[in-house]
Amino acid sequence: MSQTSLPAKIKIGFLGAGQLARMSSLQAFRFGIQVAVFSDRSEDEPVQFMTPFSYSGSFDSVDDMVEFAKTCDVVTLENEFISSEILLEVQERSGTPIYPSPRSFALIENKLIEKQTFENAGIPVTPYRLVKNETDLYAFGEEFGWPYLLKSSKGGYDGYGNAKASDLESAKKGFEQLGGDSDHDILAEAFVPFTKELAVQVARNETGIVVYPCCETVQENHICVAVLSPAPIEEKYQQRAQELAVKAIEAIDGKGIFAFEFFLTEAGEVLLNESAPRPHNSGHYTIEGCISSQFENHVRSVLGLPLGSSTMTKPAAAMINLLGTHNRPAQTDQIVDALSTENGHLHVYGKVQSKVGRKMAHYTLLGDDLDKTYLKAKHLTQNIEI
Amino acid sequence: MSQTSLPAKIKIGFLGAGQLARMSSLQAFRFGIQVAVFSDRSEDEPVQFMTPFSYSGSFDSVDDMVEFAKTCDVVTLENEFISSEILLEVQERSGTPIYPSPRSFALIENKLIEKQTFENAGIPVTPYRLVKNETDLYAFGEEFGWPYLLKSSKGGYDGYGNAKASDLESAKKGFEQLGGDSDHDILAEAFVPFTKELAVQVARNETGIVVYPCCETVQENHICVAVLSPAPIEEKYQQRAQELAVKAIEAIDGKGIFAFEFFLTEAGEVLLNESAPRPHNSGHYTIEGCISSQFENHVRSVLGLPLGSSTMTKPAAAMINLLGTHNRPAQTDQIVDALSTENGHLHVYGKVQSKVGRKMAHYTLLGDDLDKTYLKAKHLTQNIEI
Repeated sequence: MSQTSLPAKIKIGFLGAGQLARMSSLQAFRFGIQVAVFSDRSEDEPVQFMTPFSYSGSFDSVDDMVEFAKTCDVVTLENEFISSEILLEVQERSGTPIYPSPRSFALIENKLIEKQTFENAGIPVTPYRLVKNETDLYAFGEEFGWPYLLKSSKGGYDGYGNAKASDLESAKKGFEQLGGDSDHDILAEAFVPFTKELAVQVARNETGIVVYPCCETVQENHICVAVLSPAPIEEKYQQRAQELAVKAIEAIDGKGIFAFEFFLTEAGEVLLNESAPRPHNSGHYTIEGCISSQFENHVRSVLGLPLGSSTMTKPAAAMINLLGTHNRPAQTDQIVDALSTENGHLHVYGKVQSKVGRKMAHYTLLGDDLDKTYLKAKHLTQNIEI
Repeated sequence: MSQTSLPAKIKIGFLGAGQLARMSSLQAFRFGIQVAVFSDRSEDEPVQFMTPFSYSGSFDSVDDMVEFAKTCDVVTLENEFISSEILLEVQERSGTPIYPSPRSFALIENKLIEKQTFENAGIPVTPYRLVKNETDLYAFGEEFGWPYLLKSSKGGYDGYGNAKASDLESAKKGFEQLGGDSDHDILAEAFVPFTKELAVQVARNETGIVVYPCCETVQENHICVAVLSPAPIEEKYQQRAQELAVKAIEAIDGKGIFAFEFFLTEAGEVLLNESAPRPHNSGHYTIEGCISSQFENHVRSVLGLPLGSSTMTKPAAAMINLLGTHNRPAQTDQIVDALSTENGHLHVYGKVQSKVGRKMAHYTLLGDDLDKTYLKAKHLTQNIEI
């Protein structure tokens, strides 16, 4: 049901209290919308310093989440840690709608079903197969080449839940580590000789659909270190990724904000790699880089409000993830250059503890030329210590 | 002391829990900074839905505010309702710095001292005189013309604390109403034949000074209904207002964000009219209209961080104040056009109750041509009911 009105005291509940809930909350607040968060962590999450409506509980406890959902007008996701079955039960028992819907999430939470869903919709995906035993592990490597990737069909985040299969021995080891021996579905996935990793955010609800520019995610050791938008590739590949992202969100009847990650292969194919039913690190640049950010459209989409424009505010945006450089109480040092630069925007997440490699902050620089903007952004952030 | 670092859990305290605290808080959150608010109201303020650190008390009670200030790293203002003497005592007893400083505020809280301060700094102000009795009231009217304005030297906000003196009878009545008979200092101020009302925001701290564009405030019945930036006047007058705003913040050694309101007279003079030691309604357009908003520079300035750029993101900005159209539980209706328009940004304040004429929300439209942008913004918001 689309909304033409914003009642007072309307409240969005986030299942999860991480950075994505925090950044979406900032957009909710701009519309006078209240925010409640449900955390499964024992430590203080920064978003809990931004609302008096903070709940603790387990992502496995329907009871906990039903109580939480009852206090909200709509509930939304900021991670993939709760199963669609549990979400459905929470929705039914609380009477509070959850968007993206449990039904949409059910189509992507399991990597096997996800691949099948998107393949059926005519979206090219990386070659994969369900592997059940040593014979399968061997056959996949022989057919698609060694090394390949093993993935747990459930869970998995930033490279966790993955294992590299270089030969049969490491394949067997990875299979075991990922729980393949204890009934977990394990997928084998071919390594694709890609030239770029791309991402596209899409927002959709009953009022329409808005697709963001195709950006490049720059990875080091399977961690995204930077995002460049629009991706420095031929426009036809950008458009292809955007078309596939729209197809993908439609294939799962998604209501909310989604992110789709793609490989651009050496052969010029665009293959869907991963999907997320939530705002995504690849879209942080949209806060200043687009007229309406992924977080604003997260809020708008789940409330049934008209969606905001994804048009870029400048020709180029470079976003640098600022990862922890120390294990210490969080402190962001050497930020003068970053703060003093026109069109540079520093976001600090307010985490209490810094850990080496932990996502602690990000920096977005807007400009007219992507290469120069990226170089300058790296330069401005290289001395930051967190 | 300038800052080159952002420690975790740093906390800004706002003395006051109104919309300005709310909008500044949103910027604090972007830097991972925590927010505490001190409210003197019994009803729920929207910013109290945005922080677990909410305190209640009286603006007259030093004890209340000392307890509050002790929980904060820095305390700042969002209104002019607390006397500089009390602020100084709160600062001294809590040990927490207050910016803008009580010393700066002491130079503008009293309209008589404010006028003298700025006159001494060579800033033209509207003609005024302290009036103590009937003789003074009569003499002022004869010298500067009837009608003129009577103002209480303390307090006053959006036309409250003012009275119009059309003749000696109404002058005497106004003088009495404003407390002139009971030792309140009353100022007589000449009506200035102005063509435009202008405003300039300025941020300043030990790292430097940033002056915003000169904007026009469009008033109806002494209430600001719209803000246009840059003001549709000759550039030399814009620059003059900006120069005077810089002079004014320097004259009071201001640290923080200040707003200065001016009259542009028929004779082409720019006269300082009012000043505010806080973000200002005239600067709401800066949220999207400038690279760093007045709220972001509020946060940066009081923390001693380098200031952000005030450069406009588009050539023109029009901000429409959305005033309550009903007395009812707040609800913002007919917002589809406003939400669906590229470069249009709706902000709803989250107030629980709507009252006719109450500031409930605002809408900023950015564009290339000011006249067209203003017309379009009015058109897009004319059917909104709140």
